[in-house]
Amino acid sequence: MLAKEMETYITGGSAVRAMFEEGARLAAKYGRENVYDFSLGNPNIPAPGAVNDAIRAVLDEEESTFVHGYMTNAGYPDVRRAVAEDLNRRFGTDYSEANILMTVGAAGGLNTILRVLLDPEDEVIVFAPYFSEYNFYVRGARGVIRPIPADPETFRPDPEALRKAITPRTKVLLLNNPNNPTGVVYAAETLRAIAAVLTEKSAEIGHPIYILSDEPYRELVYDAVSVPWIPALYPDTVVGYSWSKSLSLPGERIGYLCIPASCADFPVMFDAAVAVSRTLGFVNAPSLIQRAVMRSLGARTDIEAYDRNRQALYKGLTDLGFRCAPPQGAFYLWVQAPDGDDVTFAQRGMEHRILMVRGSGFGCAGYVRLAYCVSHDMILRSLPAFEKLAKEYNLK
Amino acid sequence: MLAKEMETYITGGSAVRAMFEEGARLAAKYGRENVYDFSLGNPNIPAPGAVNDAIRAVLDEEESTFVHGYMTNAGYPDVRRAVAEDLNRRFGTDYSEANILMTVGAAGGLNTILRVLLDPEDEVIVFAPYFSEYNFYVRGARGVIRPIPADPETFRPDPEALRKAITPRTKVLLLNNPNNPTGVVYAAETLRAIAAVLTEKSAEIGHPIYILSDEPYRELVYDAVSVPWIPALYPDTVVGYSWSKSLSLPGERIGYLCIPASCADFPVMFDAAVAVSRTLGFVNAPSLIQRAVMRSLGARTDIEAYDRNRQALYKGLTDLGFRCAPPQGAFYLWVQAPDGDDVTFAQRGMEHRILMVRGSGFGCAGYVRLAYCVSHDMILRSLPAFEKLAKEYNLK
Repeated sequence: MLAKEMETYITGGSAVRAMFEEGARLAAKYGRENVYDFSLGNPNIPAPGAVNDAIRAVLDEEESTFVHGYMTNAGYPDVRRAVAEDLNRRFGTDYSEANILMTVGAAGGLNTILRVLLDPEDEVIVFAPYFSEYNFYVRGARGVIRPIPADPETFRPDPEALRKAITPRTKVLLLNNPNNPTGVVYAAETLRAIAAVLTEKSAEIGHPIYILSDEPYRELVYDAVSVPWIPALYPDTVVGYSWSKSLSLPGERIGYLCIPASCADFPVMFDAAVAVSRTLGFVNAPSLIQRAVMRSLGARTDIEAYDRNRQALYKGLTDLGFRCAPPQGAFYLWVQAPDGDDVTFAQRGMEHRILMVRGSGFGCAGYVRLAYCVSHDMILRSLPAFEKLAKEYNLK
Repeated sequence: MLAKEMETYITGGSAVRAMFEEGARLAAKYGRENVYDFSLGNPNIPAPGAVNDAIRAVLDEEESTFVHGYMTNAGYPDVRRAVAEDLNRRFGTDYSEANILMTVGAAGGLNTILRVLLDPEDEVIVFAPYFSEYNFYVRGARGVIRPIPADPETFRPDPEALRKAITPRTKVLLLNNPNNPTGVVYAAETLRAIAAVLTEKSAEIGHPIYILSDEPYRELVYDAVSVPWIPALYPDTVVGYSWSKSLSLPGERIGYLCIPASCADFPVMFDAAVAVSRTLGFVNAPSLIQRAVMRSLGARTDIEAYDRNRQALYKGLTDLGFRCAPPQGAFYLWVQAPDGDDVTFAQRGMEHRILMVRGSGFGCAGYVRLAYCVSHDMILRSLPAFEKLAKEYNLK
């Protein structure tokens, strides 16, 4: 007698999580060192020491009822101000605490703002491949997700395909930059073309189409690539952020929404987001960790280590004849299934105890995702297993 | 161009929160010591020292990637096991980690399980007065809330009124014990009568009616009153808990759902709850604080201090001629508006800088709620202001 919808929630569950459980099973059977688990985006690099130091300092210096107590639902004003000022320094903006809503991770923020923006049956466009949880977030907000097929050459968004996908019910373009699962970073030029299409179509359909930019990987970029600040290119942009990756704090559920004053319906949109965040049951972002990230805004996880992994895995796999999207950001490598069948490819990988997530879970069959937020040593140990897999597919 | 529903979210916002903001305004104008703010259930008593000690110990003794990282979405298995064993010791149950889902506060848990149980238009019964946020939680899960009017003599649930309120669409009876806003604790006898009605009507309508028991105030009881463990009285009971009050950690958003194996649809219900908790955007309960509460299960906030406040406020107000429900639990006093008009009463209170929340916000006009989780000194200082208010109403 559960809600009927629950069937799809359970059976259609997260492919990534399913692999995570499978990895635990294989590790128990063969020993953890003999399993090459590339399934989960769980940072293997510890949080910078500054974070735990900040937590200790907060406990030592601030009142218990303040640190562990309720604050205004949007988050501590001083924390929001510090986040705004950090963005101002980096992007030349002029935000204040009135633009920053502290959230229970990026997931909490995305669910909140989608609920604020969508009427039932409103449409949200995404570029495939895309983070599979977006399906649930959009459905939870009573909207309909409209994926645009991937460009298999570049895995960059195609503004002309976007133009064709827009309907009078389109309310949001949901971007993820740097991208999970491809590791591709969208360049300013592409984003400018997207902004032009959205401006034109918003006028045509008579209401703004918002960009919702999900940016938990903003700081995880390599080769001096830069990630454009989208609100500077398009006024109706809301940015969702999380410290899960940049400070290696995914379990802590701490992030924010940045709602610039340039958004149509600001400041009502902000007040609505605060109310929705409360009534969806988030209430407020966890308090102690809010205060700790405020003291750690300058800190960063050890991105060099991810970069070393990225280079070793990309070189290792391409040398073996696998085709991969050139990874510029996040900690994912997007690999083509040699015969185009990602389900079989992931299964055959598992026979060599390599755990990869099949692309069909990201709305893009024919590829697999490898998360390289793992030990460098595991990458080196995995290469002989990949070599066997390459041989089975007669690569090279 | 926000979702149309947002209008009611903003204008119908939380009455409690509105008072909270008003209190801040008055404090800025008259000085904090001259404002008697009884509006918000924000514990004024610090978390027991054991909590901060536990946080420090976790940071010192456990791996950063473990403490701040993803775990299985249901929460750390050892934390869930410890919570289960603590319940087993206290209530003679035989729970394991398979029954405990760690949640982002009780609010996260309630939203999760309501979504699991309700099909659109399914009905949730509550006894007025009730925590006003339930309106949003039920609506968020696409259900319909059906309040049963209060019994103004006892403020206890009336099993016969419940029987009449049940329809074929009834899916959940949502209880809050000890009760916010009345401070009343429901006795085993009442709960047994409720269980009998639910058993009979579940058979009649052909599906189980679940009790969802929201118990953040479980440990805040006085005069040696005991709070019955409802799953022992009725098999289809899910308990929602939070450490917000018992450990004074409301900002940390940490709680759990206990889903006993006696529930119809267990264990599918548990798996569905885990999936829903993930897809609603909670993902998992905040990690560090999960590990800290595991080490603090025996600790309790200073309930004596609340008891002192309770007695001083109850005696002070009844001596002045106000009528109050005898408070047995939580930290709320439920006071009758002398002429039955709670809106005017709250407004006239504000003229004496007394902040009380009007009962209409809890589905029960004619009363106001006073939260006595404040300094004892403020209670003493407030009594002369209440005396003036009593004179205006010609009490005594």
